[in-house]
Amino acid sequence: MELDLSHIRVIGFDADDTLWVNETYFRETEEKFADLLEQYETKNKVDQELFRKEMENLELYGYGIKSFMLSMIESALELSNNNIEQETIHEIITMGKRMISKPVELLDGVEEVLRALESKYRLIVLTKGDLLDQERKLDKSGLSRYFHHVEVLSDKKESNYQHLLDHLEVDVKEFLMVGNSLKSDVLPILNIGAQAIHVPFHTTWAHEVVSPEDHNNDHITLGSLKELLHYL
Amino acid sequence: MELDLSHIRVIGFDADDTLWVNETYFRETEEKFADLLEQYETKNKVDQELFRKEMENLELYGYGIKSFMLSMIESALELSNNNIEQETIHEIITMGKRMISKPVELLDGVEEVLRALESKYRLIVLTKGDLLDQERKLDKSGLSRYFHHVEVLSDKKESNYQHLLDHLEVDVKEFLMVGNSLKSDVLPILNIGAQAIHVPFHTTWAHEVVSPEDHNNDHITLGSLKELLHYL
Repeated sequence: MELDLSHIRVIGFDADDTLWVNETYFRETEEKFADLLEQYETKNKVDQELFRKEMENLELYGYGIKSFMLSMIESALELSNNNIEQETIHEIITMGKRMISKPVELLDGVEEVLRALESKYRLIVLTKGDLLDQERKLDKSGLSRYFHHVEVLSDKKESNYQHLLDHLEVDVKEFLMVGNSLKSDVLPILNIGAQAIHVPFHTTWAHEVVSPEDHNNDHITLGSLKELLHYL
Repeated sequence: MELDLSHIRVIGFDADDTLWVNETYFRETEEKFADLLEQYETKNKVDQELFRKEMENLELYGYGIKSFMLSMIESALELSNNNIEQETIHEIITMGKRMISKPVELLDGVEEVLRALESKYRLIVLTKGDLLDQERKLDKSGLSRYFHHVEVLSDKKESNYQHLLDHLEVDVKEFLMVGNSLKSDVLPILNIGAQAIHVPFHTTWAHEVVSPEDHNNDHITLGSLKELLHYL
């Protein structure tokens, strides 16, 4: 499709798996979690039950590593019928703390893209999840200087975006969102009348996957963030 | 002291223990937590160790109920030398979930004060802690309509306040903060040159207590939020 980006003044970037690696660390921890529980259940069953528990707790806990840690502990107790070793629960906590402390690994071309765009557009970060986790990652990333504003949202639904654009006094016609999640970064943005560019990451959390009939063709999909510079 | 509030245009309200009850629920849960561990340690020791663990984890986890839950689980494992029953860990998770789901209990006179001030000042909520917890509480409180803006900060240090006032384009001379914590709501505000009014709650978390030599006299202390209306 042809995109008309001539009115764009403000670009919102998702952070996790758009600017830096994130989902990979969750997947690695899920692997280790399944190993810890292998005497009780198959890896497949452990994965399914953990995901089910995360979804059950999502409304209460929201997104982020602490929520993930609490859901792992609860799943471990339930999958083992309360037979899980106390040491294993301690190990789950340690795994979560390691995730929080991970260095931030920028994705390919991120800094080059931000440097090229910062003088022509107002760049903002729009991420969801845990406030402290996200502030810490942005700080560690060294990218703060490129952004006029950073907003951590509790969720990325249409109402969250609309409310934020109102607060920042940005017209939807002037706004472009860039991110790896069709569900969170693209579809709600198109629904409020703004534009979005999808830059998929190789791994997508099951919760962020949308079925093909929910896709639409009002956005373009890029192979990497660097390709943004062909359009802007 | 005499306060000159004639230049104030924007009033920031802390939320937990200023607009609604919060610390009380943490204290109740700490009581139950000590009961769960009474076969291992005295209540006093359990309290001390839980607080020590919370402080140890604060930089990593930040504030909020999920952080508190994870610190309770870790403390229970350590205080019992990994002998704590798996059922007890499940009970700790249940206690935390109950805290998250608590109804919001407004403090005396809150709605009356906000109603009286909303037409004369821009009112904002400035709270720290978990983003989702705080948004949910504000929503349940029914107070959202009085506020022009709600900001959840990861911490309430001078830099957090200064950054926010810059973003909102509010001059420090026009800003008054109202809250129950000298450490978080009053002292950093006075240090950036804005004004603050202290409205103590009957219970203060040990982490928020400041020593008498850190007090200063550049603010007034009220017995209840309603007394604000004598000054504004």
